[in-house]
Amino acid sequence: LTSALHQQIRRFIQRHDLCPPGTRLLVALSGGSDSVALTLLLCDLSRNARFAVVGLAHLNHQLRASAARDEQFCRELAVRLKLPIVVEAVDVGGYAAAQHLSIEDAARRVRYDFLGRAAGAVAADRIAVGHTQDDQAETFLLKLMRGAGPSGLGGIYPRRDAVIRPLLDVSRAELRAFLREGHESWMEDETNADERHPRNRVRHRVIPELDRTYGGATRPSIARAAALIREDAEWLERVSDSRLAALSVAVPGGLHLDAAALRSEPGPIRRRVLLAALREVAAERAVCLGHIDAMDAVLDGLAAAADLPGARVELRREKLVLIQRGLAPK
Amino acid sequence: LTSALHQQIRRFIQRHDLCPPGTRLLVALSGGSDSVALTLLLCDLSRNARFAVVGLAHLNHQLRASAARDEQFCRELAVRLKLPIVVEAVDVGGYAAAQHLSIEDAARRVRYDFLGRAAGAVAADRIAVGHTQDDQAETFLLKLMRGAGPSGLGGIYPRRDAVIRPLLDVSRAELRAFLREGHESWMEDETNADERHPRNRVRHRVIPELDRTYGGATRPSIARAAALIREDAEWLERVSDSRLAALSVAVPGGLHLDAAALRSEPGPIRRRVLLAALREVAAERAVCLGHIDAMDAVLDGLAAAADLPGARVELRREKLVLIQRGLAPK
Repeated sequence: LTSALHQQIRRFIQRHDLCPPGTRLLVALSGGSDSVALTLLLCDLSRNARFAVVGLAHLNHQLRASAARDEQFCRELAVRLKLPIVVEAVDVGGYAAAQHLSIEDAARRVRYDFLGRAAGAVAADRIAVGHTQDDQAETFLLKLMRGAGPSGLGGIYPRRDAVIRPLLDVSRAELRAFLREGHESWMEDETNADERHPRNRVRHRVIPELDRTYGGATRPSIARAAALIREDAEWLERVSDSRLAALSVAVPGGLHLDAAALRSEPGPIRRRVLLAALREVAAERAVCLGHIDAMDAVLDGLAAAADLPGARVELRREKLVLIQRGLAPK
Repeated sequence: LTSALHQQIRRFIQRHDLCPPGTRLLVALSGGSDSVALTLLLCDLSRNARFAVVGLAHLNHQLRASAARDEQFCRELAVRLKLPIVVEAVDVGGYAAAQHLSIEDAARRVRYDFLGRAAGAVAADRIAVGHTQDDQAETFLLKLMRGAGPSGLGGIYPRRDAVIRPLLDVSRAELRAFLREGHESWMEDETNADERHPRNRVRHRVIPELDRTYGGATRPSIARAAALIREDAEWLERVSDSRLAALSVAVPGGLHLDAAALRSEPGPIRRRVLLAALREVAAERAVCLGHIDAMDAVLDGLAAAADLPGARVELRREKLVLIQRGLAPK
């Protein structure tokens, strides 16, 4: 019962404080190998731990012909494990069209909304999802090629609010070996082979090419780098948030920042203070690295002003002034 | 004369303070497209700047049949530009065998030794080398797959001591377009096609696969991420160095660190303090991420001691004690 895999996951749960004593866990179960292994491993571990698995949640995406088969498989597993299962069917395609979202973004939003409701239904306070080291490495490479900076590259978090990811240090291959050893089955997601999805291309082409070049598995190294970059970025953001609070004054429709103090901050902090300030003023708008460069140029006197999504930035009497766009400057 | 490329490089030189007023530059010239473009661009820029190109340096590696042809090409370019050229022939293969180094490591060491001597010969105080955005992106991916953490991933520095890299933001394709436009020629390095070299595999297979997945050029994003990770890491190292000085006491053959104070440091700082301490005690030995984990385990009381390359680590009365290996503990 307590294999090396169980112990590894128990240590990961402890190290990241994923399940404090008394935690009531909901497990997200798609029927794929990762989530089936997650369900079984957490049920095993809960027998000797101070957390309980109180329910499963399955979202029927209605995207694939196999959706009914996946739902049936998950219901049967719940019966066998004597756990309640919350099932919902959602038309992700329709939601994506209505909200002008990509299928991937729509599926993510619908999924986490559903998981929140399901947790409420079984009085769970944490939601376990099955992201693995494979997902971590793939996400890192996807973000890298899309131009993310260190804060974006950090990738997938072991915990974000109520959502926990106990398998983030484990490879998919290890999970499948565990399932095969226990004569457990799972449902294959045939869309994983579709190389029109960038994630699938990364999985089936980019990472194998990296492995051949290195002469071994590169996923663990990539996932490890992502975790360390995330730790650095989290701390740098905490430092920057406190510097922003010290350097800035809120005004109606904007922010004033002390330009001299900002210039004297080291680059990594200055960039993050600017980013946090812009996010605060511009609210929901997408902010990218180029916008920070534009603000930096204004701060250094290389540009008179910068018009950014949701905000205008100017230097006035040694104040860096961020004004919500559309509002008249004060 | 002042193309967009010239301006981009001038801004890069200013931003990173590569050529303070009065700088006397030696340019490393292999004869390849990057270094030929570097030589021509720096000569152009020096006409309106407060630095001077005072000489070229060419190392004949004697590794390739084409070495004599490359040397002749470089000598002719120096004559045309009316610049002195320092040329040396070194048997890199013999040096590598004698010093038990890989050809790549031996070539690097021989090269920088030679450039230092050549700078002395023409009284230069900075040495310009032709690393490009392509090299930066390739180095990042090579280090990523070999398991580097954020400090290692930072990649190639715009300046390290006297060595400067003015082309680090420019792609090889841009440099070749510049050369073709000026009807300039260069020498092709036929070993660049040899896919037994991991760097060439990254260049010819991994990056094109990333580009196809993304649907565009990914080198600029990768080089950008490397630069930002480097900025973060440089500052985190400065902070950690000052924390190490505050937390540690040197003893004969070792270091004592205040364990309670160390535990209260945030992870990114604690890890780097441990790394710097181990490097100080273990001197030349190679230190890797796994060693930091082992020290962390001792600090947290999860292990009694750790025997690391060149050093033993123990916890004694709330001091983390690092002892040079071979020496008796105090």
